[in-house]
Amino acid sequence: MSEQRTIALLSGGIDSATAACIAMEAGQKVIGLSFDYGQRHLKELRAAEVIAKELSLEDHLTIKVDLSSWGGSSLTDKSQIIPTNGVQKNNIPNTYVPGRNTIFIAIGLSLAEARGANQIALGINAMDYSGYPDCRPDYLEAYQDLANLSCKIGREGKGIKLWAPLIDWEKTKIFKEALRLKIPIEKTWSCYQGDIKPCGKCDSCRIRDTALKEIGRQDLCSSNI
Amino acid sequence: MSEQRTIALLSGGIDSATAACIAMEAGQKVIGLSFDYGQRHLKELRAAEVIAKELSLEDHLTIKVDLSSWGGSSLTDKSQIIPTNGVQKNNIPNTYVPGRNTIFIAIGLSLAEARGANQIALGINAMDYSGYPDCRPDYLEAYQDLANLSCKIGREGKGIKLWAPLIDWEKTKIFKEALRLKIPIEKTWSCYQGDIKPCGKCDSCRIRDTALKEIGRQDLCSSNI
Repeated sequence: MSEQRTIALLSGGIDSATAACIAMEAGQKVIGLSFDYGQRHLKELRAAEVIAKELSLEDHLTIKVDLSSWGGSSLTDKSQIIPTNGVQKNNIPNTYVPGRNTIFIAIGLSLAEARGANQIALGINAMDYSGYPDCRPDYLEAYQDLANLSCKIGREGKGIKLWAPLIDWEKTKIFKEALRLKIPIEKTWSCYQGDIKPCGKCDSCRIRDTALKEIGRQDLCSSNI
Repeated sequence: MSEQRTIALLSGGIDSATAACIAMEAGQKVIGLSFDYGQRHLKELRAAEVIAKELSLEDHLTIKVDLSSWGGSSLTDKSQIIPTNGVQKNNIPNTYVPGRNTIFIAIGLSLAEARGANQIALGINAMDYSGYPDCRPDYLEAYQDLANLSCKIGREGKGIKLWAPLIDWEKTKIFKEALRLKIPIEKTWSCYQGDIKPCGKCDSCRIRDTALKEIGRQDLCSSNI
């Protein structure tokens, strides 16, 4: 059997690290891919580098694609304020970045085809991603159809799989899995802000801290790292 | 009626300039978008800038996304040789760039959503694009499905249209339309090489020159500009 290789999109957060680790446990060689997309801060990129080393990935690339040229999100436009009033149900918050996942997966497909990888591991999780349209199962299914038509090997029936193992997991399940896999959670970065410590108030911190408390690991919460 | 705005992906070649011009003639405001993707040369990007000015586009942005980091194509890897032995039927040549159109359209969707544009104009042409998998109608249809699910406004039923008016045109029809629209064909750049003059031998030059001769405009052929 030929070597199995995965491109893992690494955000520096816990979900993508967990997806990468699950792929490694299944015997895949994993190449990490991160994006310098004009986000507010580079702490998450530094975290992605650290995680790639800690997990001993085969390789880790960071590519620049500057979406702050046109903004459209509080994550790529510093004049917009990141919400801190808690996750609002049925509302897409301004932390949604137009086109972000579509671009990241497209670049992942390019790298996968060039390096002969058979899948792309995504930390996407539909349960708690603040209702982003590009984190839902129907979006991923449509992208798989496109991926199969987009490339040489897809046309030959050997398409690149878009693999989002955490898509319908509760956040607590993700953290438990991360702990089992011995991922250094304290070295990941989830906060939308780029201060010295996580803010503890943005959606991303709230979601993370709530789950950590639920599994009795508040030692890893924003206020304690 | 609200203002209609188009993002036109501009390669510096004749097809994308023609698609942009057709949109303008239909009353759309047009923003050009070009990509510094690690291609062999920047002549096509300079041509795109010139065309954007000549057509008086509302704006023109160039974004960098360096696909030469992993190559996989003779256009992004200078160690590969660009074929000059004529267009081969039923064969995807090494000028195919993995993921290129998928990435470009994704970035176009991001800009379109941020700027409130209702369509993306693409110069994609299935008839003579050397069999690239990402220039075919089924690929574009699948991308439209994805685009509708990928963004806020698509979920609200006001999706961004992927508009490829030249998809099934013969190359001669494109050139006739470009001439009617008074596009300065001599200022566009099609050649895969980046020499002072077009090489006249690569697929792109051959396709262009053949069509120009067929419509009696060999004054615009590679050897004459």
